Amino acid sequence: MRPSGRAPDQMRAITIEPHFTRHAEGSVLIGFGDTKVLVTASVEDRLPPWLRGKGQGWVTAEYGMLPRATHTRGNREAARGKQSGRTQEIQRLIGRSLRAVTDLKLLGEHQITLDCDVIQADGGTRTAAISGAWVALRLAVNGLLKDGKIAADPLTQKVAAVSCGIYQGTPVLDLDYDEDSNADADANFVLLENGHIAEAQATAEHATYDEEALLRLLRLARIGCNDIFAAQAKAVA
Amino acid sequence: MRPSGRAPDQMRAITIEPHFTRHAEGSVLIGFGDTKVLVTASVEDRLPPWLRGKGQGWVTAEYGMLPRATHTRGNREAARGKQSGRTQEIQRLIGRSLRAVTDLKLLGEHQITLDCDVIQADGGTRTAAISGAWVALRLAVNGLLKDGKIAADPLTQKVAAVSCGIYQGTPVLDLDYDEDSNADADANFVLLENGHIAEAQATAEHATYDEEALLRLLRLARIGCNDIFAAQAKAVA
Amino acid sequence: MRPSGRAPDQMRAITIEPHFTRHAEGSVLIGFGDTKVLVTASVEDRLPPWLRGKGQGWVTAEYGMLPRATHTRGNREAARGKQSGRTQEIQRLIGRSLRAVTDLKLLGEHQITLDCDVIQADGGTRTAAISGAWVALRLAVNGLLKDGKIAADPLTQKVAAVSCGIYQGTPVLDLDYDEDSNADADANFVLLENGHIAEAQATAEHATYDEEALLRLLRLARIGCNDIFAAQAKAVA
Amino acid sequence: MRPSGRAPDQMRAITIEPHFTRHAEGSVLIGFGDTKVLVTASVEDRLPPWLRGKGQGWVTAEYGMLPRATHTRGNREAARGKQSGRTQEIQRLIGRSLRAVTDLKLLGEHQITLDCDVIQADGGTRTAAISGAWVALRLAVNGLLKDGKIAADPLTQKVAAVSCGIYQGTPVLDLDYDEDSNADADANFVLLENGHIAEAQATAEHATYDEEALLRLLRLARIGCNDIFAAQAKAVA
Amino acid sequence: MRPSGRAPDQMRAITIEPHFTRHAEGSVLIGFGDTKVLVTASVEDRLPPWLRGKGQGWVTAEYGMLPRATHTRGNREAARGKQSGRTQEIQRLIGRSLRAVTDLKLLGEHQITLDCDVIQADGGTRTAAISGAWVALRLAVNGLLKDGKIAADPLTQKVAAVSCGIYQGTPVLDLDYDEDSNADADANFVLLENGHIAEAQATAEHATYDEEALLRLLRLARIGCNDIFAAQAKAVA
Amino acid sequence: MRPSGRAPDQMRAITIEPHFTRHAEGSVLIGFGDTKVLVTASVEDRLPPWLRGKGQGWVTAEYGMLPRATHTRGNREAARGKQSGRTQEIQRLIGRSLRAVTDLKLLGEHQITLDCDVIQADGGTRTAAISGAWVALRLAVNGLLKDGKIAADPLTQKVAAVSCGIYQGTPVLDLDYDEDSNADADANFVLLENGHIAEAQATAEHATYDEEALLRLLRLARIGCNDIFAAQAKAVA
Repeated sequence: MRPSGRAPDQMRAITIEPHFTRHAEGSVLIGFGDTKVLVTASVEDRLPPWLRGKGQGWVTAEYGMLPRATHTRGNREAARGKQSGRTQEIQRLIGRSLRAVTDLKLLGEHQITLDCDVIQADGGTRTAAISGAWVALRLAVNGLLKDGKIAADPLTQKVAAVSCGIYQGTPVLDLDYDEDSNADADANFVLLENGHIAEAQATAEHATYDEEALLRLLRLARIGCNDIFAAQAKAVA
Repeated sequence: MRPSGRAPDQMRAITIEPHFTRHAEGSVLIGFGDTKVLVTASVEDRLPPWLRGKGQGWVTAEYGMLPRATHTRGNREAARGKQSGRTQEIQRLIGRSLRAVTDLKLLGEHQITLDCDVIQADGGTRTAAISGAWVALRLAVNGLLKDGKIAADPLTQKVAAVSCGIYQGTPVLDLDYDEDSNADADANFVLLENGHIAEAQATAEHATYDEEALLRLLRLARIGCNDIFAAQAKAVA
Repeated sequence: MRPSGRAPDQMRAITIEPHFTRHAEGSVLIGFGDTKVLVTASVEDRLPPWLRGKGQGWVTAEYGMLPRATHTRGNREAARGKQSGRTQEIQRLIGRSLRAVTDLKLLGEHQITLDCDVIQADGGTRTAAISGAWVALRLAVNGLLKDGKIAADPLTQKVAAVSCGIYQGTPVLDLDYDEDSNADADANFVLLENGHIAEAQATAEHATYDEEALLRLLRLARIGCNDIFAAQAKAVA
Repeated sequence: MRPSGRAPDQMRAITIEPHFTRHAEGSVLIGFGDTKVLVTASVEDRLPPWLRGKGQGWVTAEYGMLPRATHTRGNREAARGKQSGRTQEIQRLIGRSLRAVTDLKLLGEHQITLDCDVIQADGGTRTAAISGAWVALRLAVNGLLKDGKIAADPLTQKVAAVSCGIYQGTPVLDLDYDEDSNADADANFVLLENGHIAEAQATAEHATYDEEALLRLLRLARIGCNDIFAAQAKAVA
Repeated sequence: MRPSGRAPDQMRAITIEPHFTRHAEGSVLIGFGDTKVLVTASVEDRLPPWLRGKGQGWVTAEYGMLPRATHTRGNREAARGKQSGRTQEIQRLIGRSLRAVTDLKLLGEHQITLDCDVIQADGGTRTAAISGAWVALRLAVNGLLKDGKIAADPLTQKVAAVSCGIYQGTPVLDLDYDEDSNADADANFVLLENGHIAEAQATAEHATYDEEALLRLLRLARIGCNDIFAAQAKAVA
Repeated sequence: MRPSGRAPDQMRAITIEPHFTRHAEGSVLIGFGDTKVLVTASVEDRLPPWLRGKGQGWVTAEYGMLPRATHTRGNREAARGKQSGRTQEIQRLIGRSLRAVTDLKLLGEHQITLDCDVIQADGGTRTAAISGAWVALRLAVNGLLKDGKIAADPLTQKVAAVSCGIYQGTPVLDLDYDEDSNADADANFVLLENGHIAEAQATAEHATYDEEALLRLLRLARIGCNDIFAAQAKAVA
């Protein structure tokens, strides 16, 4: 029934290629099927002004999509001179999600910026970005620990994200572009390895949904995130 | 336990003053306690380019906060030259929420813009905006029906929104600013009168949350929205 | 002869509602008939860079119009990404007018920003803004005096403003929108309670005017401002 | 008493060099003493959208100041990415002033843009710009008449402008920079050859002023504009 | 003598991975050593306004650098709200270079946009971009020919580019970052397979250079471009 | 054969009017035929942040074109809100060219900004700007030496620039607008009085070119620059 032939609770292939680029303190190319996001983690000593001298660090994110990551070419945001509302919404979500598993005191006065750039898009770019950002962040933090720049590990656990939606009446996991553009409702869940929720966002697109549907989507997300946690563990091993 | 002395499932006073300004086709000043939002609905024949000639209409929203709506003065977005990510995220949410109860075919080739301007802020401005926007939209659509510009009512039912959160370990309804700035998690629910969900967004702030908490927040939201539906009905009677 | 039936030297009803919002140090909703402007005065210790350390304060203003304050919806300046020339011209005028009655040395190292936001427009928004801004400024300065933050009153006297114009050959006071859009010439006068002039601006629209007309417009403005001074006095009593 | 040694009612030397550049339909370098403004008039068939098909033309103006026209270097507005409020205020004034002497119906469907660029500034740049713009406009309109593109002369009479102010208690004509930066009040008058007023703007800087002072400034302006009208006549002879 | 141990006339390893992404009509990841640039070619029927209806097509380019492509993180241009002068200079160069080998008449009314995004930077990003853009363009044009959308091949020959410079007194080919940041002079040459020059740019950095040096740099560029032509041929075979 | 009747190796008349404006530390109006550029040199003590405290100075440039410098009116960059890629490319080139003859250590902690504003354009504006900028810089540096603000002359020699191109198959010197818009290739050379090259840029427009042509263009540039060096010498004598 799904255009891709997947079962309703089946993720696309998860691929994680750590150390994809050389200069960043952490770097990864993550794929959920044909969705490919390059995430780099950059460590800097310079904090945002409102955090200086407070004995803590900061984790933030920026998100971009290459103009031809998509089926038809989109405008380059740098050329248009501003980031879209969608871009800003996504990068705020990524930042919050990673901060949910970071002890900012233990991070010390470092800022880590997660740059998430979509190389190829086929649905679920923001959830792939969050899931990859954890790997990049883990690698960057490993470096800080190894270099003795911080004493204790500020990352409390893994975080991952996946989209779900109601497609032709059926809740399905990990929407690809074909499904996403026709779903009645779609949701993004950011989950922690301990089962807790960092963020739940479920939006009616062509039809509103009920509480039961919300719960079924959440359960699909748990299945997907477990796969992602396993892939993350393998990537940083 | 709540700074305001309210019970956990108690809304602030809901005030709705329809026809607050003269020129707009629909206009309302809505208050959730000290949060006051002026919403106007403007009907125009001009549609966005990608909708022209498709025999349907459009409902969209813009959101702003007066610089001194808040405890300390914020920058004027017009002077800074751009809308913040937060502003864009909120106005996208308002637009989606109202479209969830609008049959765009029945609206005909009209665009209705809901301008939501926060006169005074004390938490929950986006949910007050959505709840007030339904009233302004209802008034504007009534005018279109009365003038014979559309034949059938495009509004399928009421929509309302409220925030909830986990404050000092307890799920509470309709966070005010004091609670909002200290909540462990906060959520916004956009609900329909028939019980369906148009949007659920629950975010960990100082602590992540579990499925049970998500459900408890949703149930609080149902209580609050029922109060809002009653106030909306009275306002447009 | 006037569309409103007013006599040539008759102001519209002046309404001043002090303390309209809670957070600002001074706040007022002023109305000249259907023109309604919300003015807040915000006191900050942060001065513009070029004034720091000079032992004086600053009074400045910002102006905005809600998109649907007017008969047809205008663009939101924050969304367009810049303030119009008209907006900037008006806010510069408001700031100058209030500084004309403020002893900046006595104000000490405080900046007071007057945010003037037009809720509903029917002509004369800039003059209503100036007249209301004096009230908001007076309230904010009262607070500084009461809290002992300044020792002496920096406000030397009242300032008020009103528009006049030549409508169908007759000089008239306090143009409403119908008159303003058809006037041959229109003028804005900013007057002090002692009769002095802080600003006079008289512009030919459809016809140029002579010296005699300029003087007649000024005399009408004196009549209007006297009414406004009385309303200001009552509002801050 | 004036830093320049001029009598209170004495203009600086007025120099007008028509045809200063080659490409524009009208071009002039005007000087009021050390203030030098290059004005070009460009004729285009393209009208602003709101005027198309109405059987009339348009006259508009843009104003700029070269970064080092002034005593200390100012920012280049093109590099900063926006025009200041002052720039916009001035270019709006120039456009209005020239339209006051143009019959837009007789101009036909042509737009004439007056670009006023300050090469060197010593006070009074906006009034020199208006006075020079009339010459450039006259030259451009002569060309349209000569080429048979319009049948009747749309320019009804001359327009000129000059600044005046109260300097050390004395009303003086044509403020230079030294006077302008220390004047108690300064005014700009835009006058027609027939004695009518197109625009009067009088602003208190360090001290407010009374009606008598306003009239004395206006009378000085008449003296100055008569000199300018003579210089304009000679330049276009 | 070179930090990398290369001979003065030795290119870094050239890697070309065609079809790197799925959606674009042409796509390639090109590497000159550690410099990696993703280039996509997007075919659209929409031409820039000034070319419509002229029976010809257009080839243009945009260039960007991911924030952490470099040793230290740079600002994201989309977040800053404008493209740097360097970015604009580079994308203009890329567009001109590709148009030098394209018969725009034979291309018909198609626009091909070459998006060149630097994934990892180690000197020579603009020359790698041009060299890769030819491959992406070739692939896209092959598709147009295969689909019968154009009848004859508009690409007249290959184009490639390489940087050269004077490093510690010696002319060397294909500067990497270490060399580039310390070179006395650096040059970029865009060469055609037939030996002709499309663009030569040679800039003194720490020292000016003479005619003999210019010629030696050009000869090195010929050596490098011959290697690139061979790699291009292999990639599109 | 040339539209102007000039010989292939003939410059247009070079005119240099030093001290064209009063306020700048150096000022010149340079003409290459009908191309007229006003260049001012402004000395400031404020250095860009990345140079502060390094015991050296900086020379930089900005470039602009008055809207009606050209045959048809162009947009004002300040009104559009950004500088074009062409503008930025040119001002970067001017800055580099002047730094090639400046010992920044000897300049001390001063910044000199060269503002190059095109009053009238007929081809070759960037080369006229560079050639004039040297004169303005020389005058400004003379002032610093005379005032004892610097001890030794930081200008090592003269720099000049000229354009050349291949017009109807023939290499010609100093392209005017008619030639420039039809040239097969055009080049800009920035040369030093000692014969060295600071910058060479040769671009194929309608046809690519070979090494022999590049050398012939360079030799023409030497002829032209010698004329400019003579005119510069005379202007600063």
